[in-house]
Amino acid sequence: TLQHLFKQIFKASLELQEDDHRKALLVSRKKHPEDTIVDINGTKLGGGEQHLIAGPCSVESYEQVDAVAKELKAQGLTLMRGGAYKPRTSPYDFQGLGEEGLKILKAISEKYGLSVISEIVTPGDIEKAVEYLDVIQIGARNMQNFELLKAAGSVNKPVLLKRGLSATIEEFINAAEYIHSKGNGNIILCERGIRTYEKATRNTLDISAVPILKQETHLPVFVDVTHSTGRRDLLLPTAKAALAVGADGVMTEVHPDPAVALSDSAQQMDFPQFSEFMNQLELSGLYKSKKTATK
Amino acid sequence: TLQHLFKQIFKASLELQEDDHRKALLVSRKKHPEDTIVDINGTKLGGGEQHLIAGPCSVESYEQVDAVAKELKAQGLTLMRGGAYKPRTSPYDFQGLGEEGLKILKAISEKYGLSVISEIVTPGDIEKAVEYLDVIQIGARNMQNFELLKAAGSVNKPVLLKRGLSATIEEFINAAEYIHSKGNGNIILCERGIRTYEKATRNTLDISAVPILKQETHLPVFVDVTHSTGRRDLLLPTAKAALAVGADGVMTEVHPDPAVALSDSAQQMDFPQFSEFMNQLELSGLYKSKKTATK
Amino acid sequence: TLQHLFKQIFKASLELQEDDHRKALLVSRKKHPEDTIVDINGTKLGGGEQHLIAGPCSVESYEQVDAVAKELKAQGLTLMRGGAYKPRTSPYDFQGLGEEGLKILKAISEKYGLSVISEIVTPGDIEKAVEYLDVIQIGARNMQNFELLKAAGSVNKPVLLKRGLSATIEEFINAAEYIHSKGNGNIILCERGIRTYEKATRNTLDISAVPILKQETHLPVFVDVTHSTGRRDLLLPTAKAALAVGADGVMTEVHPDPAVALSDSAQQMDFPQFSEFMNQLELSGLYKSKKTATK
Amino acid sequence: TLQHLFKQIFKASLELQEDDHRKALLVSRKKHPEDTIVDINGTKLGGGEQHLIAGPCSVESYEQVDAVAKELKAQGLTLMRGGAYKPRTSPYDFQGLGEEGLKILKAISEKYGLSVISEIVTPGDIEKAVEYLDVIQIGARNMQNFELLKAAGSVNKPVLLKRGLSATIEEFINAAEYIHSKGNGNIILCERGIRTYEKATRNTLDISAVPILKQETHLPVFVDVTHSTGRRDLLLPTAKAALAVGADGVMTEVHPDPAVALSDSAQQMDFPQFSEFMNQLELSGLYKSKKTATK
Repeated sequence: TLQHLFKQIFKASLELQEDDHRKALLVSRKKHPEDTIVDINGTKLGGGEQHLIAGPCSVESYEQVDAVAKELKAQGLTLMRGGAYKPRTSPYDFQGLGEEGLKILKAISEKYGLSVISEIVTPGDIEKAVEYLDVIQIGARNMQNFELLKAAGSVNKPVLLKRGLSATIEEFINAAEYIHSKGNGNIILCERGIRTYEKATRNTLDISAVPILKQETHLPVFVDVTHSTGRRDLLLPTAKAALAVGADGVMTEVHPDPAVALSDSAQQMDFPQFSEFMNQLELSGLYKSKKTATK
Repeated sequence: TLQHLFKQIFKASLELQEDDHRKALLVSRKKHPEDTIVDINGTKLGGGEQHLIAGPCSVESYEQVDAVAKELKAQGLTLMRGGAYKPRTSPYDFQGLGEEGLKILKAISEKYGLSVISEIVTPGDIEKAVEYLDVIQIGARNMQNFELLKAAGSVNKPVLLKRGLSATIEEFINAAEYIHSKGNGNIILCERGIRTYEKATRNTLDISAVPILKQETHLPVFVDVTHSTGRRDLLLPTAKAALAVGADGVMTEVHPDPAVALSDSAQQMDFPQFSEFMNQLELSGLYKSKKTATK
Repeated sequence: TLQHLFKQIFKASLELQEDDHRKALLVSRKKHPEDTIVDINGTKLGGGEQHLIAGPCSVESYEQVDAVAKELKAQGLTLMRGGAYKPRTSPYDFQGLGEEGLKILKAISEKYGLSVISEIVTPGDIEKAVEYLDVIQIGARNMQNFELLKAAGSVNKPVLLKRGLSATIEEFINAAEYIHSKGNGNIILCERGIRTYEKATRNTLDISAVPILKQETHLPVFVDVTHSTGRRDLLLPTAKAALAVGADGVMTEVHPDPAVALSDSAQQMDFPQFSEFMNQLELSGLYKSKKTATK
Repeated sequence: TLQHLFKQIFKASLELQEDDHRKALLVSRKKHPEDTIVDINGTKLGGGEQHLIAGPCSVESYEQVDAVAKELKAQGLTLMRGGAYKPRTSPYDFQGLGEEGLKILKAISEKYGLSVISEIVTPGDIEKAVEYLDVIQIGARNMQNFELLKAAGSVNKPVLLKRGLSATIEEFINAAEYIHSKGNGNIILCERGIRTYEKATRNTLDISAVPILKQETHLPVFVDVTHSTGRRDLLLPTAKAALAVGADGVMTEVHPDPAVALSDSAQQMDFPQFSEFMNQLELSGLYKSKKTATK
């Protein structure tokens, strides 16, 4: 009927306009159909091979980070995370070691030949971060801290951008565009769970966001299984799901002794757990170990 | 202080009770550590092997169901879904063929040797359903229609119970308990996405629910990728994620000509798409084709 | 520019279509601009005057309901609620007295000249309900139990329809349409809080839903402050908000001794609390006491 | 059993700590039972009298702000809002006039004797803001930008803190604590709607948050009805609800010509609409006009 034809024309035009808008975005696959490969000292994210990023929630001491780095190295990892500036709900919780933490990360990264990733929380610290880090992380709470995004877009250093606590996928893509619009296209997107009514998990891992982000943008997409679930017993199955759904990699937390960790003690793996996690991932056929590659 | 001691004893007792309560649930793994295997005419759900359930959103005609059944058979499937009673938001939308639809399903199931699954929406229809169906489905909108649950629990027929639109995992488990408490323990749980703020997908697939349900209960757990995402382009990646995370199977919608479907036209696969979906699943190594088994 | 003109035409046409759809609904104000007034034995809901509905969560005994009725009468109320069939998350929780509860309500209603409202949970009980009740309630969990809606639409008895746990306003309106489409236009809508991530309250009272429902439909709109908040300390402020925002009335729970109540003990008021609640509402100028009217 | 006793002692201690923690918060009513009154050039927020804050979404020009200020003055208002730095989803949307906007606000505030409120989005701008503004606003997207909170806590200027897009009430209170912990106790909390599945409104106004915040803290609490609803037709009923529920005031947006506004055109009132809004609020008895007081 006439009414339906009319409707179809509307819908199509509407979609065309949205399409145009997306085409204009620098991070959009329509603008740039090829995958962006972020090369971090030789480890290529987004290039087809899937990688793991692991490390402690917070940098607590040289010894702690040293122990973790040794373990990651043994498992064939090349990328280590660790928080120096910790955004915490309460001002009276442990706020991280700050620049001291960055220095520890730098020293360890040189000792083991690992690349390090750490969160920066304010524009004024971005320049400092460039000296110490291989990847600048922007956390969920700061996904729409636009001044921070612009500052990270103005330096020549890869940025791992986490999805906001309740950001839509569209807002997430636009946040990445803030970085790219300032000249820095080395961006890794990271799904880390969204806030929903369900309380069995700390957040709800939005697994469908991964293929959508891969379709809409040309950027590598990671999944942080630790913050998505907040439960140690779910790290392995959700990591498998992330790899199966097409993520470029998985991020997780490892600590020498989670029970005494200064933050997130309930969700970090200790070394035997991490070793078992790696073995199971490899056994599932979903992850190809890089252990031999490091020998 | 005394008050606090009092409070602590209170709380502890509460928790003990909750623990006891969970232990007491018939569907709980604490009560019954072994996996329940639901045997549907020889197809074993929950027994380690993963299965697919497919079919049209609505039963529209004998010819439509016949065409779908032939295609499913060719792909090695043994379980077909199809809606005869359709719960629709508006009273003026297509409400399904009703008993006529059940008859079509029965006839086709006999012709092809497929088992059929269809939703029943009111207690009064449960007895009738037993004659026509191999599995009674209880849909998301009726997950807390307790009279329907009790009626389904009183017959000797497997029940596929979908998670409610915004049901917590705990409420979902308790809904299954309503069925089991009436004597019917042949229950299949089905995650089908939850309602969140994100609108890029029709619902948000809560992939973490699968390992939690497997831990907490002894029942088979399926994932309906069609209703979770509402997007044809996400069926394959989310099906992979579901199989990788440990689901006992995946449910999806197939229609000879989705464009003219009387419901859910945007999310059903046509036959070439379904064939490609099956091939890709098999190629991923996550799904073992049952084609040879049917020769 | 041309593009914007284009866009405007699309949007307008889209809106026209939606408008047409809404115009078609029997419950829509576009179809029927005048307010529907539901007359319950002389108490007129939706006619400009605001009313209270109160009573125990569950009917527990004749004595309990008798005590509540006496108190309501003293406070000038004419409408009493009380649950006979209780939809409970667990099959092992108190499920209500059933028909015995309806009989108690009927007896008390005659003794005190109060009208009674109670929830019916399955189509098979609707006819029975007509004998005992003045208003049939359909609860949140059954808002999309379409067979129940149709059954309630087929009898000549006012229906109080609660919004589903996570129903959109559009779904809520369509649920009311299911009732009206069967011939029964005496419908009262009741906002009762929606499910969100916030856990400080049991649900999140969606206060904006009230003016939207008043605009979109011609039906009376109530707010259930008890289930919205789940907190006794929030009943008074949210009742004030409901009356100020334009609701036709407020529903709340009163029990002779909430501490021993068989359900919802944490959120019901005892008699002194209820008396204070009524006094404060009257003092605020937002509620006109009907005490004198009953002398 | 022993294990359970152990667990109970643990839990109880945890709870004791939480209680202690809340008691320890500077913003907590347990720490400081009296209401904090924030005095802005003589207008006292939190002192029992309810106030309105209004103004354009964005500062666009001297003439625009001048026109609004004149209208506010005529309506008896003393507090004007206006955005100079605009946090926008897309980097290609209007980002505000920046410091130029602050200068316009300052000039107009002096001309009309109004106090001005504007959002600051990065720590580096806080000191500049102190020169131009009477109240520093921290927006929803920056509620957990902890460096910004600390910077705002280090100056001697009232801060209006908006609730985050999906912040819990507890997180909101802790964000205020970040400000107070640095020495600045002149904080106004502002509920502005939370993100839920419901799309009939831009956000869902969490009206219950107001009495909870008044109970838990000693700070003034406002409701931003414009961002809560995103709908001009809901501003009046929700403003009434806010005043009735016990808010210390209401914030809303007014623009000389909303249709050409550079942001939020669909939700700002023009002058005749604002005048009618003020009249209706006064007529409802919920708001006491300050017009005479300004003569």
